[in-house]
Amino acid sequence: MKKIVVIGGGTGNFAVLRGLKSYDVELSAIVSMADDGGSTGILRDELGVLPPGDVRQCLVALSNSSNMMRSLMNYRFENGGLEGHSFGNLLLSTLEKVTGSFEKAVEEVGKILYIRGKVIPVTTHQVRLRMLLNNRRLLEGEKEIYLSQEIDQGYKSIYLEPFPKANPHAIAEIANADMIVMGPGGLHTSLIPNLLVDGVSDALRASHAKKTFVVNLMNRKGQTTGFRVSHYLSEINRFVGADIFDYVLVNSQKPAQELIEVYAEEGELVENDLSDERVIAAPLLGEPKDMPKKDLIKRNLIRHDSKKLAQELMKIVSHL
Amino acid sequence: MKKIVVIGGGTGNFAVLRGLKSYDVELSAIVSMADDGGSTGILRDELGVLPPGDVRQCLVALSNSSNMMRSLMNYRFENGGLEGHSFGNLLLSTLEKVTGSFEKAVEEVGKILYIRGKVIPVTTHQVRLRMLLNNRRLLEGEKEIYLSQEIDQGYKSIYLEPFPKANPHAIAEIANADMIVMGPGGLHTSLIPNLLVDGVSDALRASHAKKTFVVNLMNRKGQTTGFRVSHYLSEINRFVGADIFDYVLVNSQKPAQELIEVYAEEGELVENDLSDERVIAAPLLGEPKDMPKKDLIKRNLIRHDSKKLAQELMKIVSHL
Repeated sequence: MKKIVVIGGGTGNFAVLRGLKSYDVELSAIVSMADDGGSTGILRDELGVLPPGDVRQCLVALSNSSNMMRSLMNYRFENGGLEGHSFGNLLLSTLEKVTGSFEKAVEEVGKILYIRGKVIPVTTHQVRLRMLLNNRRLLEGEKEIYLSQEIDQGYKSIYLEPFPKANPHAIAEIANADMIVMGPGGLHTSLIPNLLVDGVSDALRASHAKKTFVVNLMNRKGQTTGFRVSHYLSEINRFVGADIFDYVLVNSQKPAQELIEVYAEEGELVENDLSDERVIAAPLLGEPKDMPKKDLIKRNLIRHDSKKLAQELMKIVSHL
Repeated sequence: MKKIVVIGGGTGNFAVLRGLKSYDVELSAIVSMADDGGSTGILRDELGVLPPGDVRQCLVALSNSSNMMRSLMNYRFENGGLEGHSFGNLLLSTLEKVTGSFEKAVEEVGKILYIRGKVIPVTTHQVRLRMLLNNRRLLEGEKEIYLSQEIDQGYKSIYLEPFPKANPHAIAEIANADMIVMGPGGLHTSLIPNLLVDGVSDALRASHAKKTFVVNLMNRKGQTTGFRVSHYLSEINRFVGADIFDYVLVNSQKPAQELIEVYAEEGELVENDLSDERVIAAPLLGEPKDMPKKDLIKRNLIRHDSKKLAQELMKIVSHL
């Protein structure tokens, strides 16, 4: 059975994992530990735990449990002192407090949710993401970076504080993978934070796995404004220290004009400026009509279809 | 296999259920729905759910899961917006929101905790406990009643608002029981609230089960000051509308004098003033030295031993 390792964090991972879950492959998700917004940020501050939010999303993506259990994990409180928390975050954080180990907590929730595969934090150290902009402003935390509209003006550095060692389990997964998938996901907030962990870039360069980059559908205004496919690749490769990707999966399908217009204040479509043989262009869009109403917020209007994504990725795997 | 139904709520039930769990009997716990203090009260107010706290304790008492899962259920948050909540309460309340049914939530948590037996809310209606004192003061809610120091001055009435129908599952359990156990537990806050639910007293009078009352070890100052065993019985029987108990289990063991002194500001020992053949006097005290340090608060210094309780109850069951 081929081993696929998906590196990311945040909602980008969800579609890839959810799609690949139906295939007969060994799946691992390596998750960034830089999240500090919303429920996750409050739990980090108040309980001193590691960030549960991205891990929760990966666990739900890989879950074979009932709809009820998945609804439970994603349930968000709307009132009082619990407001904004998702139940799954509380479960992960409480298990971390009870067992004294975030990895153990992830493992236990994985059992409760009957997950297919593994979810592995990229580091088990407490870190905060920092970004020093060209205008000398220091953005403190993933949330501040996510909300900034000035990143496309250039930045001097992005780093984790303190500089963390990688989780050895994450390094082992990368070393033993047949295929590694990066993206889609927030470039500076979900993808790069994994590469800022000591040992991850080395492991990626050393791994014999075929490496596939799944390019985002849309740029994010003020962050990746005007980025084309080559910009995403060169930004990632700069942190890895080599041009590691064997395949670049890009969407060839044009979204409906009215969706592009609605989305315009969030960002514009990523255009493909590459034509080398690594590039696989395929229709990858999800149908907006299939989305639950609550997801019909702008950033979800144009999104990957997990089945189409997985089909293209499995075509690559079938040739390994 | 004999069917034992334990009626109560609160920590009193815990020792009985935990003790009986090791025996080859069919166990059900019928739980009062009047709790509105602490974490439970906040969840009722903010989420509009039924009170999870007493149910949680019964589920943990009947659980065959790992120590870790039991620690998770009882974990109490100490900081921020989550302060005071126990994780098990959050789990029950969130499952109630997700499934739309408190009974379904209890059933699901029962599965997660591998419980032996059943836990059944006495009603599935939202109720509040009220007590009108002789001095015309109205105590609103179980918490206010629990904290009152004036109840031993007499009260005009105690009732649930609105007057609720019983959960038919609770009525069926009472009808099919071989033995029914009431107590130990807070007389006005944990035991009587079950009898204020429409249908419960009728079912108790009609049931052919042998009925055993386990008398509290200590009176509660300002509430049951000076109560002897006969006072507990007559107070319960007044609400049931008949003298239903076949057995009255009382402790014959004297606690260490220094414990009685430390406990004195909470209340004094319940003295036995009955000598009829229903009364079973046996040593029932737990060893204070066995208690985890965090439980060494006054109200837990003198408490029932779950093994001794269960042994005496099983002697009765073996003669049925």
